[in-house]
Amino acid sequence: MSNIYLGVIGVGGVGTAFLNQLARLPNAPKLILLARSTQTLLAQTPAYSPPSPLSPSLTKSGALSPEEIASYLSSAPGRSILVDNTSDPALASSYPVFLRKGISIVTPNKKGFSSDLSLWKEIFAAAAEGKALVYHESTVGAGLPVISTLRDLVATGDEVTRIEGVFSGTLSFLFNTFAPVSGASSAKWSEVVAQAKELGYTEPDPRDDLNGMDVARKLTILARIAGLEVQGPDAFPIESLIPAELASLPSTADGITQFMTELPKFDAQMAAIKEGAEKQGKVVRYVGSVDVAKKEVRVGLQQFDKDSAIAGLKGSDNIISFYTKRYGSNPLIVQGAGAGGDVTAMGVTADLIKVIQRLG
Amino acid sequence: MSNIYLGVIGVGGVGTAFLNQLARLPNAPKLILLARSTQTLLAQTPAYSPPSPLSPSLTKSGALSPEEIASYLSSAPGRSILVDNTSDPALASSYPVFLRKGISIVTPNKKGFSSDLSLWKEIFAAAAEGKALVYHESTVGAGLPVISTLRDLVATGDEVTRIEGVFSGTLSFLFNTFAPVSGASSAKWSEVVAQAKELGYTEPDPRDDLNGMDVARKLTILARIAGLEVQGPDAFPIESLIPAELASLPSTADGITQFMTELPKFDAQMAAIKEGAEKQGKVVRYVGSVDVAKKEVRVGLQQFDKDSAIAGLKGSDNIISFYTKRYGSNPLIVQGAGAGGDVTAMGVTADLIKVIQRLG
Repeated sequence: MSNIYLGVIGVGGVGTAFLNQLARLPNAPKLILLARSTQTLLAQTPAYSPPSPLSPSLTKSGALSPEEIASYLSSAPGRSILVDNTSDPALASSYPVFLRKGISIVTPNKKGFSSDLSLWKEIFAAAAEGKALVYHESTVGAGLPVISTLRDLVATGDEVTRIEGVFSGTLSFLFNTFAPVSGASSAKWSEVVAQAKELGYTEPDPRDDLNGMDVARKLTILARIAGLEVQGPDAFPIESLIPAELASLPSTADGITQFMTELPKFDAQMAAIKEGAEKQGKVVRYVGSVDVAKKEVRVGLQQFDKDSAIAGLKGSDNIISFYTKRYGSNPLIVQGAGAGGDVTAMGVTADLIKVIQRLG
Repeated sequence: MSNIYLGVIGVGGVGTAFLNQLARLPNAPKLILLARSTQTLLAQTPAYSPPSPLSPSLTKSGALSPEEIASYLSSAPGRSILVDNTSDPALASSYPVFLRKGISIVTPNKKGFSSDLSLWKEIFAAAAEGKALVYHESTVGAGLPVISTLRDLVATGDEVTRIEGVFSGTLSFLFNTFAPVSGASSAKWSEVVAQAKELGYTEPDPRDDLNGMDVARKLTILARIAGLEVQGPDAFPIESLIPAELASLPSTADGITQFMTELPKFDAQMAAIKEGAEKQGKVVRYVGSVDVAKKEVRVGLQQFDKDSAIAGLKGSDNIISFYTKRYGSNPLIVQGAGAGGDVTAMGVTADLIKVIQRLG
């Protein structure tokens, strides 16, 4: 706990929840930088010692570049940690710079770990130099112990053969509502999407959930930890739930409104998929899977028996099953809320505690 | 990884599996002591440097006392770790001595954490002095991420309200077989117990599973981490499945044989319990629960809906549900094999890696 300095970027839902959890940590590291896209608060050098987090002694500045932030943090008189609570690809692509300067990274930002394979390799090569650590539990399943469990399985020499599950809280909610296991639902697909948007369960543009890209990024991360050299989230088949005719509408407020207005035209297509499953006594769910032996990653719709764990999911829960040599035919399963500010921040805070323990 | 020395006690099922995993670890610490109840292998002082684990240069010795082992390990020219793969209460009661001498503890041995509350407090007070670490993931749910998940929830400020689950692989197997969800089983209780004994799923004396004590010890550990000051595993109600008439038979080979011979006399009692649940459309399972608000710990039989996750468990799987403020009405669930040499050793090895990372 000795002399650890903290920079935090991002004050959205996760960022705010994280700052709340940080404020309650005993022996929290000193917060010397707090930034959002347009503004940065800095502790004054050379002391780097605000009397309290967010105190008036923090200096205001405009947006800093990743390089400026790295340079500021690496000059602190002790070890430093960057908590990246954004989903910014530019910041993520600078992780190797931070790590080489001895700044550890804690983040729920998927971009660094699910973009081009070369960035993944660069990040872990920089970490392997031993000057700093990188933890990213919340990139998959929010605060659920997914990344740590998979890393433990691999590090202790188990052979992970298959990973399967529901990885999107939004898509979990949509299908649990659209095609529930018990009691037929008469809700139309477009109505369920509108309801989820209303409740704030979708991204501002629901197509950012429906395109399956978020799930594909998570699968990319898990596949890589399991040992597959996945080039990127576009290197394997992703089944998009956006009707082709609506894919090119702009992501503006008008475009989104038009998308929501036209979506009902495609309700019959989704109804047919749902009824197709029902005729087999099954339900349809949006899942991702990694088959390690076959080196296959897949993201899309699949039918499940009504008494299966995946079919029985509730609300916006995620479920992740790890099939391994040691665990045999019954997988190791982790289940629970996989989205939301508080539980995502929990994964970040727990990672931060582990990094502090290792640096301390 | 620099200069870390390892002592390992116990070469039973878990101990042997652990040594296999250890042998495959890159940068494994130097094994300088390997002991079982009657014999100890030691690297010769002052070098403490066997050319390879279990090499002929290890000296043979008789059984050493915990104090002698602590003194030997603490004299090694670097940090040292004791891996206790026994279930020995005497060794566990010496953990504070080890920790105060700077020797970290990694163990699946429940005794230190589930016996008298004063020992728990002593262990963590000794660890809090900051000279050594104590990790014990495999004390609950074997390699499943149970202890680490609960500690993360607590450390990040979540409020754990209730923990519930099936915590015994043996009792999971017995009830999944005796009262399966689908398809009536005609097997008698005593036959299922005999089958489990045959398969090696029970302790040599099946009463060591049927008395519920193992589950009670696990609940004691979880309740304490969640903040309850549980005096010990006998401080709350435990429903024993040993017929009172057979409880006093000795634990000798003859006593065990007599127990198995007389158990069929009580099949009608268990059949009545099973049928009672069936009349409600439910199944009976042996579960443990911690109600944090009510400060209540319970271990015993309970009826569950056939479509519940607990009823649907397979084989000898465990399931542990954490209800917390952040996770709301849908708990965080961890499920999978909760017993067996390989998966228990996995929890030990993963803990060892974490301790090495923190010491390194």
